Amino acid sequence: MKSFSPILENDFVKLAPLSMSNYHHLLPIAGQEKLVQYSPSDIETPEALKKYVEQALEKERNFTAIPFIIYDKRNNKYAGSSRFMNIDQKNKVLEIGSTWIGREFQGTGLNGQAKLLMLNYAFNEMHFEKVEFRIDERNIQSRKAVEKLGAKLEGVLRKNVYLLDGFKRNTCCYGLLKEEWS
Amino acid sequence: MKSFSPILENDFVKLAPLSMSNYHHLLPIAGQEKLVQYSPSDIETPEALKKYVEQALEKERNFTAIPFIIYDKRNNKYAGSSRFMNIDQKNKVLEIGSTWIGREFQGTGLNGQAKLLMLNYAFNEMHFEKVEFRIDERNIQSRKAVEKLGAKLEGVLRKNVYLLDGFKRNTCCYGLLKEEWS
Repeated sequence: MKSFSPILENDFVKLAPLSMSNYHHLLPIAGQEKLVQYSPSDIETPEALKKYVEQALEKERNFTAIPFIIYDKRNNKYAGSSRFMNIDQKNKVLEIGSTWIGREFQGTGLNGQAKLLMLNYAFNEMHFEKVEFRIDERNIQSRKAVEKLGAKLEGVLRKNVYLLDGFKRNTCCYGLLKEEWS
Repeated sequence: MKSFSPILENDFVKLAPLSMSNYHHLLPIAGQEKLVQYSPSDIETPEALKKYVEQALEKERNFTAIPFIIYDKRNNKYAGSSRFMNIDQKNKVLEIGSTWIGREFQGTGLNGQAKLLMLNYAFNEMHFEKVEFRIDERNIQSRKAVEKLGAKLEGVLRKNVYLLDGFKRNTCCYGLLKEEWS
């Protein structure tokens, strides 16, 4: 499988490859308290964020992830991060996840624009057949966001992921098939 | 994480580590036509079975699987294979899968005995907190078998796994939590 690190953009948002040379733009955002409270990721300190990015790049080298840095073009500011992950080339299924943007960007439509770019890329350029989203059952905001994109709730996996605070979450599995995407 | 290759046995069945030196006992069984028709595994020819075992052992070296050869103690015959797979040490979740036994052993209770040994080992020796089973939606026989063990249907992932014949199956996700297991 060939490696690809695309740049995805429209009038609102630009997604560029996340790297060791640009992740520092995210330090103030990642440090916002409990930004990813429903995720097992640790990004809150500079050391934790560096490790998080290193692990993402390791997965990129293994062709199982493509991590992005999100740039808000209307405000000319770096806003957060997202990625293609659990890339299953054989079955043409991947997940969009590890998504977080600063609180000031939430509710602005930025995240929806980023997701549209990623979905179009996954289905039309990578020619994948299914995109999944995995979300803490309690995270109603994220669940509504992916439902708005057309993703269907396929199941709730009970107690399968530990969060940093020791809580074991139930994980909602959402799926969007290529034939459901236009 | 330490490596462990246990031997699990009771009066009916013995599960020993699958290896390059014992897998040949399975050649006549794996060659039975369409034995794993609901699975993406290819085991039907000697070459395919060898590759299947090599891949299993590679996963064992990465600590993500523990493959077993199943021996029927009442009939003194090798019967098939099963494994712990997708071992998620961090979240204490693993899957029991890639299970197949020859047709002459099906319906004899052998598979149920093997599963009991594996569940006891996962919960009581490995101290895992959840065991999952992933089964083709159409495979009613296997679904009933894991339901009998107490596993709960948590979701049906649509069109996520290609089978060898090009059909893309829907996958039932079953889960059994430690607190549900006695």
